Amino acid sequence: MSKLLAVGTVAYDAIETPFGKTDKILGGSGTYVGLAASQFSVKTGIVSVVGGDFSTSYLEMMNAKGISTEGIEIIKEGKTFFWSGKYHNDMNTRDTLITELNVLETFSPVVPENFKDAGIVMLGNLHPLTQAAVLDQMSEKPKLVVLDTMNFWMDIALDHLHTVLKRVHVITINDEEARQLSGEYSLVNAAKKIHEMGPKYVVIKKGEHGALLFNEGKMFHAPALPLASVFDPTGAGDTFAGGFCGYLAKTEDNSFENMKNAVIYGSNLASFCVEKFGTERMQTLTAGEVKTRLQTFKELTQFDIKIS
Amino acid sequence: MSKLLAVGTVAYDAIETPFGKTDKILGGSGTYVGLAASQFSVKTGIVSVVGGDFSTSYLEMMNAKGISTEGIEIIKEGKTFFWSGKYHNDMNTRDTLITELNVLETFSPVVPENFKDAGIVMLGNLHPLTQAAVLDQMSEKPKLVVLDTMNFWMDIALDHLHTVLKRVHVITINDEEARQLSGEYSLVNAAKKIHEMGPKYVVIKKGEHGALLFNEGKMFHAPALPLASVFDPTGAGDTFAGGFCGYLAKTEDNSFENMKNAVIYGSNLASFCVEKFGTERMQTLTAGEVKTRLQTFKELTQFDIKIS
Repeated sequence: MSKLLAVGTVAYDAIETPFGKTDKILGGSGTYVGLAASQFSVKTGIVSVVGGDFSTSYLEMMNAKGISTEGIEIIKEGKTFFWSGKYHNDMNTRDTLITELNVLETFSPVVPENFKDAGIVMLGNLHPLTQAAVLDQMSEKPKLVVLDTMNFWMDIALDHLHTVLKRVHVITINDEEARQLSGEYSLVNAAKKIHEMGPKYVVIKKGEHGALLFNEGKMFHAPALPLASVFDPTGAGDTFAGGFCGYLAKTEDNSFENMKNAVIYGSNLASFCVEKFGTERMQTLTAGEVKTRLQTFKELTQFDIKIS
Repeated sequence: MSKLLAVGTVAYDAIETPFGKTDKILGGSGTYVGLAASQFSVKTGIVSVVGGDFSTSYLEMMNAKGISTEGIEIIKEGKTFFWSGKYHNDMNTRDTLITELNVLETFSPVVPENFKDAGIVMLGNLHPLTQAAVLDQMSEKPKLVVLDTMNFWMDIALDHLHTVLKRVHVITINDEEARQLSGEYSLVNAAKKIHEMGPKYVVIKKGEHGALLFNEGKMFHAPALPLASVFDPTGAGDTFAGGFCGYLAKTEDNSFENMKNAVIYGSNLASFCVEKFGTERMQTLTAGEVKTRLQTFKELTQFDIKIS
């Protein structure tokens, strides 16, 4: 079992969907990654920053799930990163209403001593220089570096992104962002171009259409679970990434064949995340529920054609 | 092995894509269904109509592939149905430039005597009354009736569509049309509503995102093969349907488990169809190529997680 180090945001979110709206609730990419990875009982540490307004009960909840919050700096006089958004009726598009960076504005990640030898590092969607600063602090070269990014960083920090990508094994990115980063419309060609930028493995997230894993000409597709209702999509992509990393940390097998399983686990956990507001569902999720849904994923994807 | 009867258009198409444009070439839903089904060496008969301008070489080509064209009426003084369209750069959207119904305007399908006992009937995308007229002529109740339709018929002949749907086992429909027919956004709920209209099996086609098969709470997902380039998407949906029906006709097993295989074969054949203009690729496709690609589909979808 490898240690998993995840750098990302720990935040307050206020979310409005066709099903209702919330006050400030727990959110952030680091939070979702940590909660998803906790399903695999791996030693996970989060590197992030919050303000004095952040409820310690959330840190206690994470600790109770075996997530180390030692790397979450608390800036007493600062305020926690806050995001507010409203989803449209189709749940695939959303408007950002408020983004208050607060303590994130001057965030300088500090990796705790006992996570400097983590086997897997998940670089959440942050400035490429912040992502690089985490790698610089590792005492041992991680066996696997996974990076998430978004169009915003391609717009304002493309050179830095290219630099950090050279140090990355796996990139997780959504389809539109893959097209922007590569300049290719076909996802097959996009993956090939991104592969040349550094990451041997390219995971393209397609929301309700699932995810594709590419590796040197090989491809794998994990569907999203078709759901009767998506309650709140917030955090689904980060939960996917957390499930992916958590499974690899547990199994310590970074082969393409095992990464197939990892994307299925990512998709499995993401299908729970969207069932309730924010992190609510992930906080109560049990191993038994994950196992039952894994069976559903098998039935959804496995077929038995004899090739004669 | 069951006989397969397919009613649909046999047409001339003129197609423009970012890769080039064609003069009038062979097209039509019946044509694509027949060519796809011919991969399974099942006895397939097409019911359609063409004009005196239709090249007999096309009929000979179909006959050489074992497709019966006895049910394709030739109206010497009429002109063949003509469609012309232009695809946008993303290949997912297109503009119809010309639609000349010609002989299709007064089309009254006549089922040849030796196909009145066909085990599988594929009702291509035509007026629901035309689809019903085919079923009325069957001497034996078909074991499986598959229906394809589109938003146009929902707009102008919804009542007739509902009537014929009561006689149908499988509907193939795209995602937007499923939403229109059911009034439900979630495809899970849409399938449930459509199920109540008659079809026990609902196949929702999602283009480049694959297809979903629903049956009484059970679900299966077949991805589309990610391709470096889609040359011409025309006929992909009909090829999918032809592969689906052809496989079921060959195996004579209409269980949900075997239908999973049928949608994989549909997706497999559709992935070839888009590689060249019109029916070109389907005319030269060999069994060996299909078999090799089936292996690609297995690698694309199959994983091996032990559930303990």
